[in-house]
Amino acid sequence: MPEPNGMITHVEDIGWENRLAARARRMQSSVIRELLKLTSQPDIISFAGGLPAPDFFPIREVQEACRYILQHHGPIALQYSPTEGYQPLKEWLAETMSKYGIWVESDNIMMVNGSQQALDLVGKLFVDPDTCVVCSRPTYLGAIQAWDAYEARYCTVPMDEDGMIVEELPALLDKGKHRPRFVYVLPNFHNPAGTTLSQSRREQLAEIARRYDLVIIEDDPYGELRFEGADLTPLFRLAPERTIYLSTFSKTLAPGFRLAWVVAPKPIITRLVQAKQGADLNTGAFIQMVANDVCQRGILRQHVRRLRNVYRSRRDAMVDALQEHMPGGVTWTVPQGGLFLWVRTSDQIDTREFMKTAIAAKVAFVPGFAFYPGEQGGEHSMRMNFSYCNEETINEGIYRLGVAMKKELAGA
Amino acid sequence: MPEPNGMITHVEDIGWENRLAARARRMQSSVIRELLKLTSQPDIISFAGGLPAPDFFPIREVQEACRYILQHHGPIALQYSPTEGYQPLKEWLAETMSKYGIWVESDNIMMVNGSQQALDLVGKLFVDPDTCVVCSRPTYLGAIQAWDAYEARYCTVPMDEDGMIVEELPALLDKGKHRPRFVYVLPNFHNPAGTTLSQSRREQLAEIARRYDLVIIEDDPYGELRFEGADLTPLFRLAPERTIYLSTFSKTLAPGFRLAWVVAPKPIITRLVQAKQGADLNTGAFIQMVANDVCQRGILRQHVRRLRNVYRSRRDAMVDALQEHMPGGVTWTVPQGGLFLWVRTSDQIDTREFMKTAIAAKVAFVPGFAFYPGEQGGEHSMRMNFSYCNEETINEGIYRLGVAMKKELAGA
Repeated sequence: MPEPNGMITHVEDIGWENRLAARARRMQSSVIRELLKLTSQPDIISFAGGLPAPDFFPIREVQEACRYILQHHGPIALQYSPTEGYQPLKEWLAETMSKYGIWVESDNIMMVNGSQQALDLVGKLFVDPDTCVVCSRPTYLGAIQAWDAYEARYCTVPMDEDGMIVEELPALLDKGKHRPRFVYVLPNFHNPAGTTLSQSRREQLAEIARRYDLVIIEDDPYGELRFEGADLTPLFRLAPERTIYLSTFSKTLAPGFRLAWVVAPKPIITRLVQAKQGADLNTGAFIQMVANDVCQRGILRQHVRRLRNVYRSRRDAMVDALQEHMPGGVTWTVPQGGLFLWVRTSDQIDTREFMKTAIAAKVAFVPGFAFYPGEQGGEHSMRMNFSYCNEETINEGIYRLGVAMKKELAGA
Repeated sequence: MPEPNGMITHVEDIGWENRLAARARRMQSSVIRELLKLTSQPDIISFAGGLPAPDFFPIREVQEACRYILQHHGPIALQYSPTEGYQPLKEWLAETMSKYGIWVESDNIMMVNGSQQALDLVGKLFVDPDTCVVCSRPTYLGAIQAWDAYEARYCTVPMDEDGMIVEELPALLDKGKHRPRFVYVLPNFHNPAGTTLSQSRREQLAEIARRYDLVIIEDDPYGELRFEGADLTPLFRLAPERTIYLSTFSKTLAPGFRLAWVVAPKPIITRLVQAKQGADLNTGAFIQMVANDVCQRGILRQHVRRLRNVYRSRRDAMVDALQEHMPGGVTWTVPQGGLFLWVRTSDQIDTREFMKTAIAAKVAFVPGFAFYPGEQGGEHSMRMNFSYCNEETINEGIYRLGVAMKKELAGA
């Protein structure tokens, strides 16, 4: 294709890398995002992403809400709006969260563009270069990516089937020279591990946080997606004076809304609002008003009930398929909710290497190493998403994975 | 209202301020945002905000686009989407910008949540603590707020009726010990000054940037809203190898979309994508697809033509009213486009103090001091927005302002 003179593709590189701030040198493209590019071929069965089932989005209801909001509130929906978020939606959230024992006023809530923005703003407010953040190993990749940009260091605590082994925290804290800025915890259906932090560990963690004067960041994107068992107490309920709680509409309504929220004591909401003003002024009023309409009409509640059934059935399909197709020695978590389970292979399989074999066999997962911040780990683990594919596809994908793994083991 | 036991309003303050990162101490709530709260009483005539005319939003067209996108592309619109942005929209933008001499491929573009996010990501990538950013005085408040969060220092260059006096730049650069990270410039209908950088100064600035090996950040939210005169050459056209160009749909379509874009050489787009992944993963697909639909159908082009007429007429109404109602000695810029003009009062008026009098007289503006980063200036100036109110209201507001100012001068 002929290009006009001056097309930017012809310009010299003026040495951009040398002009970057120190923090930018730590930033990398997410391993998951790069993987997702590999796995976007239509014939690949992907357990790699964290995508909700697209065939169950409440499209008609969203369409109706868009029509209603634009017809009745168009000039407000399309205008600039308060940084804090849309007041009626915040009131609905305050009311709704009270059923989990999170008793707050709407002033304790700020709306954000997906939980990832909350993680970024928390980093901006709390992380100085080289300050320490406590998290589980493995932990959520997106949190690492957000805080790497503020040059955090990570002090990690191992996990078992009851979540982060909080009993090991005091020894870690006594050893450290400086008080960590916060403890990051995913209590419900952990990403990537699939585990739930037990009630007694929640109580211990709140007690330790008080004793060591720590802040807790409680990330709860999947709490509403519980398939079985009773809800456990949020950390926010156990230590409301020192917990910043995050949740989102991405897994219950739709990720395309980019709509989530933070709950925190008011002094921190004030600071989060200042940080968000500098970051993007406000979250779009239109999207917030549409979400509010869907919530107020009771549609979200119905929809979440439906999703729980769909995802439970998909989890069961994956667990059954693993049982049927995996070679001996492979184990996995059976999560009580959420989107992910965590598979432990035999020590002969390096999942980072095995991924290439799997992709050749037209099936994808995320190798475990991606969830270990700046350290070894996860070489024999993989994260498997069960929300995106239907039961039949799940069975076919696990079958392919099992065949590939048996072949790999036979060759090794 | 009785509150359940454990309501967060009852918890102690654990000393949050002492836990903040160094950068957070620099963050403040925007003066404009705090002012807007004061001016939200319905009987106040506000020239303070930078709001588009809400009575001219293309509501019906947006409604139709929402319906179409959800009906035909619902599962994609509501799902996670690429960080770079929606490909067909980026292609439309590349095509459209070529008429201004910005010849780029879609890979040179990244979509963001309003230009404010682009300013934030630029700060994240380029600003180390205490590094210097060159800007005009006055300059856009939102840029200061974005870069304060990364602890920037500001080296400022004065303005005249032809925009930033770039002739003073070499002396400033020779004086400084360190190379500034970039020069920030609003070439068209400057916020707050209303001026346009002349063609010869654009050429000089490109030449100086090359000589001193500087990066240029070209912020162009209002370029499409030119009422008269010919388009001048974008800095991006004059120095494509070293310019990062920002523009937005907020002023042409609707701010409630929170949709803007960055144009840059590919190595910088790669870095911006990494930074955006950590900041909020991606901009919502739904909003991008709706905007794309509106653009592809030619609706945006028609709409912008209409806005130019509306805003020209409102600018004229404000200039006429200033002529009629202001006391002698008050002067103002007559911008060729955009949303703002800049009023210079007599030295006896301190606009920060006068604002209180004005609000008592039920009219609001932004005092000039707000646009001077960390230094004196603007004490006798004010920014006046002419896009939000209709002609009649503009005349009434300026009349009130004139009466208040004459009274203040008589009392002084």
